[in-house]
Amino acid sequence: MSQLDDLMRDLVVANRILSNEQVVDAYGHISVRHPDNPKRFFMSRSLAPELVERHDLIEFDQEGEPVNDKRQPYLERFIHAAIFEARPDVTAVVHAHAEDTLPFGLVSTPLEPVIHSGSFIGGKVPVWDIRNKFGDTNLLVTNMMQGRDLAQSMGDGSVALMRGHGFASAARSIIEVVRLSVYLPRNARVQMNAMRLGGKVIALSKGEIAARAAGYKPNSPETWRAWEYWATRAGCGDKIGKPYKSPANKGQRHTSKGRS
Amino acid sequence: MSQLDDLMRDLVVANRILSNEQVVDAYGHISVRHPDNPKRFFMSRSLAPELVERHDLIEFDQEGEPVNDKRQPYLERFIHAAIFEARPDVTAVVHAHAEDTLPFGLVSTPLEPVIHSGSFIGGKVPVWDIRNKFGDTNLLVTNMMQGRDLAQSMGDGSVALMRGHGFASAARSIIEVVRLSVYLPRNARVQMNAMRLGGKVIALSKGEIAARAAGYKPNSPETWRAWEYWATRAGCGDKIGKPYKSPANKGQRHTSKGRS
Amino acid sequence: MSQLDDLMRDLVVANRILSNEQVVDAYGHISVRHPDNPKRFFMSRSLAPELVERHDLIEFDQEGEPVNDKRQPYLERFIHAAIFEARPDVTAVVHAHAEDTLPFGLVSTPLEPVIHSGSFIGGKVPVWDIRNKFGDTNLLVTNMMQGRDLAQSMGDGSVALMRGHGFASAARSIIEVVRLSVYLPRNARVQMNAMRLGGKVIALSKGEIAARAAGYKPNSPETWRAWEYWATRAGCGDKIGKPYKSPANKGQRHTSKGRS
Amino acid sequence: MSQLDDLMRDLVVANRILSNEQVVDAYGHISVRHPDNPKRFFMSRSLAPELVERHDLIEFDQEGEPVNDKRQPYLERFIHAAIFEARPDVTAVVHAHAEDTLPFGLVSTPLEPVIHSGSFIGGKVPVWDIRNKFGDTNLLVTNMMQGRDLAQSMGDGSVALMRGHGFASAARSIIEVVRLSVYLPRNARVQMNAMRLGGKVIALSKGEIAARAAGYKPNSPETWRAWEYWATRAGCGDKIGKPYKSPANKGQRHTSKGRS
Repeated sequence: MSQLDDLMRDLVVANRILSNEQVVDAYGHISVRHPDNPKRFFMSRSLAPELVERHDLIEFDQEGEPVNDKRQPYLERFIHAAIFEARPDVTAVVHAHAEDTLPFGLVSTPLEPVIHSGSFIGGKVPVWDIRNKFGDTNLLVTNMMQGRDLAQSMGDGSVALMRGHGFASAARSIIEVVRLSVYLPRNARVQMNAMRLGGKVIALSKGEIAARAAGYKPNSPETWRAWEYWATRAGCGDKIGKPYKSPANKGQRHTSKGRS
Repeated sequence: MSQLDDLMRDLVVANRILSNEQVVDAYGHISVRHPDNPKRFFMSRSLAPELVERHDLIEFDQEGEPVNDKRQPYLERFIHAAIFEARPDVTAVVHAHAEDTLPFGLVSTPLEPVIHSGSFIGGKVPVWDIRNKFGDTNLLVTNMMQGRDLAQSMGDGSVALMRGHGFASAARSIIEVVRLSVYLPRNARVQMNAMRLGGKVIALSKGEIAARAAGYKPNSPETWRAWEYWATRAGCGDKIGKPYKSPANKGQRHTSKGRS
Repeated sequence: MSQLDDLMRDLVVANRILSNEQVVDAYGHISVRHPDNPKRFFMSRSLAPELVERHDLIEFDQEGEPVNDKRQPYLERFIHAAIFEARPDVTAVVHAHAEDTLPFGLVSTPLEPVIHSGSFIGGKVPVWDIRNKFGDTNLLVTNMMQGRDLAQSMGDGSVALMRGHGFASAARSIIEVVRLSVYLPRNARVQMNAMRLGGKVIALSKGEIAARAAGYKPNSPETWRAWEYWATRAGCGDKIGKPYKSPANKGQRHTSKGRS
Repeated sequence: MSQLDDLMRDLVVANRILSNEQVVDAYGHISVRHPDNPKRFFMSRSLAPELVERHDLIEFDQEGEPVNDKRQPYLERFIHAAIFEARPDVTAVVHAHAEDTLPFGLVSTPLEPVIHSGSFIGGKVPVWDIRNKFGDTNLLVTNMMQGRDLAQSMGDGSVALMRGHGFASAARSIIEVVRLSVYLPRNARVQMNAMRLGGKVIALSKGEIAARAAGYKPNSPETWRAWEYWATRAGCGDKIGKPYKSPANKGQRHTSKGRS
């Protein structure tokens, strides 16, 4: 299969995983940049992620408009278009309303990495409030101007919370943005629970966050392990491909970095 | 099919959705106004919503009494009768005991919309205490006098909490009252969690609530997306009809309002 | 079928319901008094409640010892024997470790009815601490002396919390003790969440608790509705009998008491 | 079957149980010491525990390296090797990231046994912070030096929390380490909830912890009851063997110790 075929397959699986892991429900979406044309990206038509099949995927242009496709797109596709525009390093974007991330968008206490699986959040998470620039709206990102403002708030980070609405996350691969999005609510819950115990809460240090980022490979056996597990739980374990590098076949072994 | 047929079908699906999304358990109910006779409404006989089939639906008169039907009705049918009486704009009513809405009925802190999917709550939610007018009761709304007092407390809003008991919600369509009732407990959880983080909690502004209400269409692709998703999860995806307006067939596209 | 047959059938269903509703896990048990010999009762052999079948039921004497049965009984059968001894009005007893009831056994704040479905708790729940009379034990009720001390703590109420361990509940029928035990953790969660919102928490009044108790019938359509629902969810909807009095067949209708 | 066969079978079942009971997800692992060679142990290759089959088990040497096996091992196998080295009394080790244990690793409040099923925690749980000796790392235990430091922190106890990461637990049998690991998050939740109610929280006394430890037998009917229940829930009830001593067959009965 071509790289494009692989990405389409992974995008379908990612939709199912995000739904099964309760990151998205009827709403929320994931996109991937076109591997051959960086100004384009793929995302499902307007459909609950759990129900997405390959034929539901639509190609979008850099302004967030479908390319030769009359089907109904997601209203908030501009989140994706704007982040892909602002961030050449990003290949995959998620927007979701995961419940346990929402409290941190409503108060001044920042969400930040407190557990190792949350390290990919990267640091204190900025909160973007659409009201600041756009006044009273329906809170949705429904044009490129709003999308660009959100992307700017994200800076060179990997997540921005959206006040009263959800979050946007970005990464260099589908597998990484899924992982980030799955562990973000968990990090939020642990942080909330630790705060309620009273006293100081120890967050990850900058050095720890950097060490984890440096040691992380999106196609390591450790990363694949989670992808395989999540896909199996989501009922599409048969849709995933082989690990990018099969260590069993090559006799290779990762020894000291990554995650276990 | 006639409009009545459609409504009966949707009412069955709504029962299953409310159960599967944990808004109701063995108790709680949903009704719809008769499309041809505004003084009548339909609701299941006394049965857990998860088990409701079309033949379980009973027609009720404006006093909440079954019309030519000897089967056991819900004791609290007067909630529905009274709200339909007081509110000609309302077509569908839910009464439920969803656990995470209950704390806000016991304290002075009001439940209010803090997330965009909670905007349809409309504002600070009134708490109706049956004890104020009726003294020590079993807390159930078992006659029209109590039902009317509850309806009055709701005013022209869409929800009233019932102290130590649950909530009543009302909307202009089945799909909207389901949506409101599904997101009400989520809004409550997010608000509770935000409050526990300490400091001020930012609620939706009046302008935002109005902007969302203005842009909302009960038969938009975005709304249908959730209905399809919830019905599929509840095991009755095959019972829903086609979207009211299929954008794929008509080449139409919604562009900037609604929800995604 | 005889009354005994009915009770055996209901006891099996009750085991499954308590497990499926997460009141018990591998541990916890439910018993019913012998309908023809008030000094005897029935309970499963030592087995996780989810797995209990009719042939697992053992008859026990008033000292909590199996009658002509060599199979392994539950260690804590004395809880049941002692409550049946102390309370002639009681026909069914549950002992469980439901997680959300446990916090109230560790602090001075009493658990009390705050929601209408929790009214059958009856009032502020006493906490029995085995350490007070028996010093450092393994916390289990492993003889009649301990069981009697627990039963005394329960008084003429329906529940006692057991510090660091769980609760015992008692009622005049299987269906009532199941209902009480299912709603006890829910009441506890609502009370905990309301307390965290700050300010005064409104509990049910004594008059409300009495009104609910007075209007409650264990074989009403409302009660049957929950039993049918819980049994269906637990995968044994086919094992329940017909409602004790079928209102559909008799044209009777309950009109103003009970629960909906 | 030989004892080794039994242990391999139990190790597979333990993997499934830990996953189904949400102690582990894609990450986390369980090991068992070789019954004939105390310097060796068995653990799965790098694979989500839910997916582990017998042929996935690898034998490891005392330095945590696979014995004649090229398959990818878990990165953090050194946790297991170091604990087996330090603790001749230990036969089985778990490492996991169970979410509700994590808050106690971030604050100064110690996790401690507050419920009888948590007694096997043994007392206030030490928190090991990898940063103290090893500075900014990716938080993973990726060599024997780190593993030994963690093992030292555990002392002669049964659990150590790992700051921002998870926990390690150890026991004299697979069934005991599974039980400890399943009840550890529950104890944590109960303790958190009790603390939030305000006032003093009563913990188990040293005498109670000792009484429970003294009365506990890993092959008692009470312990088997949970193993059977968890395995059944995890879909591998057919993979467990017979109880070590079948009381039904031998007419024996346990009477006053253990857990019910």
